[in-house]
Amino acid sequence: MLTTLTATDKLSLASQQNSSLLCIGLDPDLDRMPAQLRDRDDPIVAFNRAIIEATADLACAYKPNLAFYEAHGLYGWQALERTIAAIPSHIPVILDAKRGDIGNTARLYARALFAQLGADAVTVNPYMGRDSIQPFVDVPGKLTFLLAATSNPGAADFQEARDGHGLPLYRQVARLAAELDGHPGSVGLVAGATDPTRLAAIRSDAPDLWLLLPGVGAQGGDLESSLAAGLDARGGGVLVNASRSVLYASSGSDFAPAARQAAMELRDAINRCRTRH
Amino acid sequence: MLTTLTATDKLSLASQQNSSLLCIGLDPDLDRMPAQLRDRDDPIVAFNRAIIEATADLACAYKPNLAFYEAHGLYGWQALERTIAAIPSHIPVILDAKRGDIGNTARLYARALFAQLGADAVTVNPYMGRDSIQPFVDVPGKLTFLLAATSNPGAADFQEARDGHGLPLYRQVARLAAELDGHPGSVGLVAGATDPTRLAAIRSDAPDLWLLLPGVGAQGGDLESSLAAGLDARGGGVLVNASRSVLYASSGSDFAPAARQAAMELRDAINRCRTRH
Repeated sequence: MLTTLTATDKLSLASQQNSSLLCIGLDPDLDRMPAQLRDRDDPIVAFNRAIIEATADLACAYKPNLAFYEAHGLYGWQALERTIAAIPSHIPVILDAKRGDIGNTARLYARALFAQLGADAVTVNPYMGRDSIQPFVDVPGKLTFLLAATSNPGAADFQEARDGHGLPLYRQVARLAAELDGHPGSVGLVAGATDPTRLAAIRSDAPDLWLLLPGVGAQGGDLESSLAAGLDARGGGVLVNASRSVLYASSGSDFAPAARQAAMELRDAINRCRTRH
Repeated sequence: MLTTLTATDKLSLASQQNSSLLCIGLDPDLDRMPAQLRDRDDPIVAFNRAIIEATADLACAYKPNLAFYEAHGLYGWQALERTIAAIPSHIPVILDAKRGDIGNTARLYARALFAQLGADAVTVNPYMGRDSIQPFVDVPGKLTFLLAATSNPGAADFQEARDGHGLPLYRQVARLAAELDGHPGSVGLVAGATDPTRLAAIRSDAPDLWLLLPGVGAQGGDLESSLAAGLDARGGGVLVNASRSVLYASSGSDFAPAARQAAMELRDAINRCRTRH
């Protein structure tokens, strides 16, 4: 019998197989790639393939951010398709698209990301409310991460706005996510590693959801305090994302082994924190 | 001397030339197109070209929503490029993309939309805060519409959250937009025509900004009360968007003249409201 794994099944299996909670952000930047790659016909895919090959036994997910592809127009879109095809089928693909629109339009974004591009999971911006999120959540077997608390300096500009009970916006989103997770494993949350207090509040609001943690490394988030705040009761349920610190660990021809080394160190550091948890 | 018009210059000129505050949303839906177009090699572009030719003397802007193109993968991206190329150069193109990400990534989205695709204006989701918006606003000569109050039923789920002074989120966004509009004409706001009270508050917070009003027609917004709330002191500054009510005015082979008729009626209805204002 052919059974189809859900996105969270894949995530759990890849996490076990690679002893890993490390998500690698595939954010290719031509200006930071080794010169030998920039001159090739297909530099983005050549770079991503090398990164994937060097880290496929260390990552539990890959997360291409669509901006890095769309910035190259039609070539970028093709490069995104080829990058996704280069990711081993047992490792889930999270498309970091931060989409969101009114219902009938959100359905088309869901189709673009899940059906056209073949994502296992996506990121969605919740600003427009429940009916802008539901079309993503409704796609069976897929995982939708809602932006709750983001990792950038401006996160607090609007994400601290309160509802009538004094609950900040990022926690309103976390509670809605927990409520929408009718089929367990269909909704997750983005919770920046730059603020462990917000992260802990999000974990208390959504004890069973996968949390995607950007902001460790280049953005200054502290790994140990983030994991202490974010891990679930079983010491899992968290994806620590690293992009620049892995991809550009070296700007020379040794970029792939350097990326492997950086990924291994981060994976192992995450695992040490889990043991202490 | 060659002078480059800014997006708001183009908007004002097109508005004057066509006596119009009508923005036509180019949201091509294969299921609603006449059968004769669906069978063509390039149905989206054939449909959009016919709509543009039929309405180019009635519209003051065209607004493709990217979801309708991305849902078709690579073909959709090509169709978006060809659609933009088919829009007369004196009519501004607003790309409804609702993007937003951390600073360095937002810069890439800005590049994708303004440089790669050639948009005059874009829509941006403000959830991530000021530093996620600034890279769009910083592109000279372009216009960035921030989502403030949206037109969907779920708009109030999060957009009513309050800051420490009791100001709802959509007004916090409106005030930030007014503040960011350092070069006048670089920032606008999306304000749903489905709630004239919110629209009036947004206009009072941002008296000089262009407002993009979705929600008239298929979404049930009332034209007269929306314009009374949204027009600026000079009886302008508003773009009334119509998509489905124009594009699918007829599902038969007369879709283009029917779209023209619907666009003309709406443009003229808008102008009658302006006269009474």
